[in-house]
Amino acid sequence: MVKVAILGAGRIAQIHAKSAFLNTQCELKLIADPWKEGVDKLATELNCEAGYDYYEAINRDDIDAVVIATATDLHIDLMLHAVKCKKPVLCEKPIDLDFARSISAVQEIQSRHGQVMLAFNRRFDEDTMAIKNAILNNEIGEIRQVIITSRDPGMPAVEYMKSSGGIFKDMTIHDFDAARHLLGEEPVEIFATASRLVDEKLATINDYDTCSITLKTKSGKQCIINNCREAVYGYDQRIEVLGSQGLLKTQNHRPSTLKKYTRDTTASQQPLLNFFLERYIGSYRTEFNVFVSCLVEKQAFPTNLFDGLQALYLAVCAMESVESNKAIRINPEGPSKYFTL
Amino acid sequence: MVKVAILGAGRIAQIHAKSAFLNTQCELKLIADPWKEGVDKLATELNCEAGYDYYEAINRDDIDAVVIATATDLHIDLMLHAVKCKKPVLCEKPIDLDFARSISAVQEIQSRHGQVMLAFNRRFDEDTMAIKNAILNNEIGEIRQVIITSRDPGMPAVEYMKSSGGIFKDMTIHDFDAARHLLGEEPVEIFATASRLVDEKLATINDYDTCSITLKTKSGKQCIINNCREAVYGYDQRIEVLGSQGLLKTQNHRPSTLKKYTRDTTASQQPLLNFFLERYIGSYRTEFNVFVSCLVEKQAFPTNLFDGLQALYLAVCAMESVESNKAIRINPEGPSKYFTL
Amino acid sequence: MVKVAILGAGRIAQIHAKSAFLNTQCELKLIADPWKEGVDKLATELNCEAGYDYYEAINRDDIDAVVIATATDLHIDLMLHAVKCKKPVLCEKPIDLDFARSISAVQEIQSRHGQVMLAFNRRFDEDTMAIKNAILNNEIGEIRQVIITSRDPGMPAVEYMKSSGGIFKDMTIHDFDAARHLLGEEPVEIFATASRLVDEKLATINDYDTCSITLKTKSGKQCIINNCREAVYGYDQRIEVLGSQGLLKTQNHRPSTLKKYTRDTTASQQPLLNFFLERYIGSYRTEFNVFVSCLVEKQAFPTNLFDGLQALYLAVCAMESVESNKAIRINPEGPSKYFTL
Amino acid sequence: MVKVAILGAGRIAQIHAKSAFLNTQCELKLIADPWKEGVDKLATELNCEAGYDYYEAINRDDIDAVVIATATDLHIDLMLHAVKCKKPVLCEKPIDLDFARSISAVQEIQSRHGQVMLAFNRRFDEDTMAIKNAILNNEIGEIRQVIITSRDPGMPAVEYMKSSGGIFKDMTIHDFDAARHLLGEEPVEIFATASRLVDEKLATINDYDTCSITLKTKSGKQCIINNCREAVYGYDQRIEVLGSQGLLKTQNHRPSTLKKYTRDTTASQQPLLNFFLERYIGSYRTEFNVFVSCLVEKQAFPTNLFDGLQALYLAVCAMESVESNKAIRINPEGPSKYFTL
Repeated sequence: MVKVAILGAGRIAQIHAKSAFLNTQCELKLIADPWKEGVDKLATELNCEAGYDYYEAINRDDIDAVVIATATDLHIDLMLHAVKCKKPVLCEKPIDLDFARSISAVQEIQSRHGQVMLAFNRRFDEDTMAIKNAILNNEIGEIRQVIITSRDPGMPAVEYMKSSGGIFKDMTIHDFDAARHLLGEEPVEIFATASRLVDEKLATINDYDTCSITLKTKSGKQCIINNCREAVYGYDQRIEVLGSQGLLKTQNHRPSTLKKYTRDTTASQQPLLNFFLERYIGSYRTEFNVFVSCLVEKQAFPTNLFDGLQALYLAVCAMESVESNKAIRINPEGPSKYFTL
Repeated sequence: MVKVAILGAGRIAQIHAKSAFLNTQCELKLIADPWKEGVDKLATELNCEAGYDYYEAINRDDIDAVVIATATDLHIDLMLHAVKCKKPVLCEKPIDLDFARSISAVQEIQSRHGQVMLAFNRRFDEDTMAIKNAILNNEIGEIRQVIITSRDPGMPAVEYMKSSGGIFKDMTIHDFDAARHLLGEEPVEIFATASRLVDEKLATINDYDTCSITLKTKSGKQCIINNCREAVYGYDQRIEVLGSQGLLKTQNHRPSTLKKYTRDTTASQQPLLNFFLERYIGSYRTEFNVFVSCLVEKQAFPTNLFDGLQALYLAVCAMESVESNKAIRINPEGPSKYFTL
Repeated sequence: MVKVAILGAGRIAQIHAKSAFLNTQCELKLIADPWKEGVDKLATELNCEAGYDYYEAINRDDIDAVVIATATDLHIDLMLHAVKCKKPVLCEKPIDLDFARSISAVQEIQSRHGQVMLAFNRRFDEDTMAIKNAILNNEIGEIRQVIITSRDPGMPAVEYMKSSGGIFKDMTIHDFDAARHLLGEEPVEIFATASRLVDEKLATINDYDTCSITLKTKSGKQCIINNCREAVYGYDQRIEVLGSQGLLKTQNHRPSTLKKYTRDTTASQQPLLNFFLERYIGSYRTEFNVFVSCLVEKQAFPTNLFDGLQALYLAVCAMESVESNKAIRINPEGPSKYFTL
Repeated sequence: MVKVAILGAGRIAQIHAKSAFLNTQCELKLIADPWKEGVDKLATELNCEAGYDYYEAINRDDIDAVVIATATDLHIDLMLHAVKCKKPVLCEKPIDLDFARSISAVQEIQSRHGQVMLAFNRRFDEDTMAIKNAILNNEIGEIRQVIITSRDPGMPAVEYMKSSGGIFKDMTIHDFDAARHLLGEEPVEIFATASRLVDEKLATINDYDTCSITLKTKSGKQCIINNCREAVYGYDQRIEVLGSQGLLKTQNHRPSTLKKYTRDTTASQQPLLNFFLERYIGSYRTEFNVFVSCLVEKQAFPTNLFDGLQALYLAVCAMESVESNKAIRINPEGPSKYFTL
């Protein structure tokens, strides 16, 4: 029975805590967060201990593994501490908003043979897994084009955006990971164009709300990502993969399959699941279960720090492309030349 | 915290036990079944006590409520025992295969003011709830026709069918309940036609595999149910409601939204969720949660023994219609004249 | 080049005239109707002669074939006249509203070896042809259940309904033909239930607006037809066929494939094609082309007077079922014992 | 009655000839092509004159308007001749494969006040018109992103490709026009990436088979076009428009709405209409009818030579972007500074 501590008591931490509560291979031992009110409430509900210090939680002898779901700027410190304590980690993305700092951290973790699974939860979504399986089963032959549509239902608060690292590191990063995952080959080139169509005031924080990105791999496979911070019809998440022998497509999710036909609106369906907590609740559950099951069965994690660095690298290059209005060459030795995982 | 005992350790009992394990308003205290091997395994997995006698389980002072998920022929005895012990019950359908016995039992339970929720789980399905809510919100005006399609993926074993009470009591009974639920008015007339198109040998047990049923209410609302014991493409569960101001339709469920287009099969989707344990797992969970929440909040159950009797009554009349080849008049004073709930 | 006369200048006649104009195997020679204004306008538009007498049109030596698209009560007289003149006929359905008169007429036409194609145009609809072909190609094995949904967008004028022969002869007759066509086996039993849910005043003309009909063949195949005179969301025309090896379904048609997602209505599609002239324009064209092509290639017509009689027979029996509230036995020697076609 | 001559007897010419035959506002007088066998056959079928010289056809006094559907390299000469003869022209796209020559030609035609409608038939497709109308009706607010998917069912013959002008001028040109049409604002920037994933040998003719293109307008609206010369599942033609108030999407077309569910393939639909002659037959008809109706009602053509030049300009810039791997600035004074139409 893997004894687990959850670091953080915010909305993502709550999801992981609930997953730990439901997982029959692990025991939810502790939830730790300096935010006393939040952590007490959550611990009571899930019948486990509450702690108020992240480092103490990691130190405890009766904790076998930790989940880092704190503010982003603590990710690296907590990961390093856990690695020093020989505790396996499931860490929320991104590693850090600073790319250089992320590289250094990954190098150190690597030199210490740390065990870290990076939480790209969408890889564990039922639709993404179905599409990936179909690719692996060679159901559509060689991949030619991947089209990823990813649009948020509405703009986050400006305060959030200021510290988010910008649309590429905050929002597109999931799509960069999905692109790498589905292409099955690293991109060597990226072009990004970005606009402020939802809110012009984003110019003041040098951010954008609408972007179109093209990736190309060495063998010429292409990936198109389109993002918008506001889709009034709901959280739009679709993937399409064109292969030499066919096409795969996933669709949006709704609370039920009901269709309504009236005089005015024919065949209207229920609204899309509104945002990622609703849409991807299943993928968070599966992700956590995979983390525990890898520990129990002593297998390698399916997503690791290299994935985290590469996604961040693409985000950095995307911004460079927007600023230069050129396609950016991605060095495949790129940030990765410093280490192997 | 409601302390719950699950009676039974078979597949439906397992679902209810898991629901109790997950529900934060109740405590899964005990699972009881004379089948030692089954009950021990389940209790270990869900970290609760195992018992081997249904009646002892009901008797225990530390049990507040019981779920009856045993063989059908024990339903009445266990319900009566629980009612005598003043324990609220969630009982699997049907009440009993014998209609007269069912009426007597319900009368006795009623005279003792027993608290029984009858497990018509499909009413708690997200699609059925969405369609019912749309009707209640007057989104399609007055109901005119309800069409219920309900087809199993394949024939059950002959042994099962022999003791099932026949297609109407075993399979259509869910659709009869759905018809009453959606029509919002009791049927006063039923016509049923039935064939043996999957397996002629059903003649030896006087059963059928394919049937079409028409119900009509006093105000002329119509409901058509079509059943088949074998749909090779999977478990087909759809509802359609025509109203004076529109139409509502639900669709089948699949494991993911993936669509595949190849040279040979365009737009093929993943297979339907194959059978009721997969298709209706959510409705079983919700049903259990509603049961607990009614207890906690001291509210009336949304499905009761009257619903159980009425569905059974329709099954009996359907068989009479098949045998006489006439529409059967349903006495609205029908079995119900004997009691009020 | 087959020289064709169209009898009638109303809306169905106009469709046939346009079909004749477009068909390259025939020449539209003449349109005849006592309604001078209508026929003149139509003939001018389609660059052909106008006539004012049906019988003269049939008599003309330079006319090879006639299309009867007049008022229903003239169908029999005009057919008989054309048959006497040895002119092949495409006649609109129904043969006549009076069943006995229809039988006599068919017997006489048969004794004279008349060539008549009866215009059940829906058999020539692309969807119906696709579903029939899939059945004939054995794509779903043995048929078990056929479900036909057929709902008009709105009630016709009361004046029209008074002389329409009632819902079964006027509206369901198309579905009776479709049922026979798709079942591939004559029904031997019919049960019909009918209500007045759109307009209670239909009681004064002994007609109904909403009905559910069950047909059964000798081997036990079932067909369910559901009709309503008013579906506010548009003309609802769908077919579903369950076979031992699969299911076939057709869907409604819309003017374009556009889907719209907004804050309020997600995935709403354009309204259904509103009524039969729009929905079935293609089937009218194909039907006419088949008529001409059968003439040119000297082949038997795919729909004949026997089809017309059988559909009428089912309509008569449906009314009898409604009145007796019993399933009606259809004599397979039925009206058909009097003749073979 | 507009008297029309069709120049050409190939497959596109055949479509226009049939459209002229069916149009009641015009008379198909003449089809001209030096290819005697082809033109004779077509003229016989459509009951009109055959000619063997394009210029003579244009010269004839009894010809009011001409349709140019010849080989591309004759477009300019024939247009100029028709313009000199004061005959209105419907000319197939592109104007010419050479951009500079196209500009000169347009300048000359403009100076002579020539009346030319350029045949971007897809603008007249029912789906494109529905999406454009919804935009014009402000149903989705301000446009943010347009996604155009356009994939051919299979590679054309190498011989064809050699003289096609390359994928951008031959295939994407339709999508460039659609982009301009739907964005409602000229692009000022284009980035294109292209690969040879279907056939590497295209390198020998400096052509590509798979490409992804991003366009941006001055106000920041974005358009993504994705093309592939081979989609084994059929001719894939879809458009998606994201606006500030919603999303619009069109879907592919099939020969019927039939869906089939079997043990192996659930919900498979019929194959896509295979190529442009089937998919866009309706848009060709409408385009021709609009041409005639503009002549009759003396209205401006909805698509003109400026549209032709701009699409060609985008194709030229796309190639430049592929070669430089940079976004190309499109001068809005661009080729257009030389003239106004």
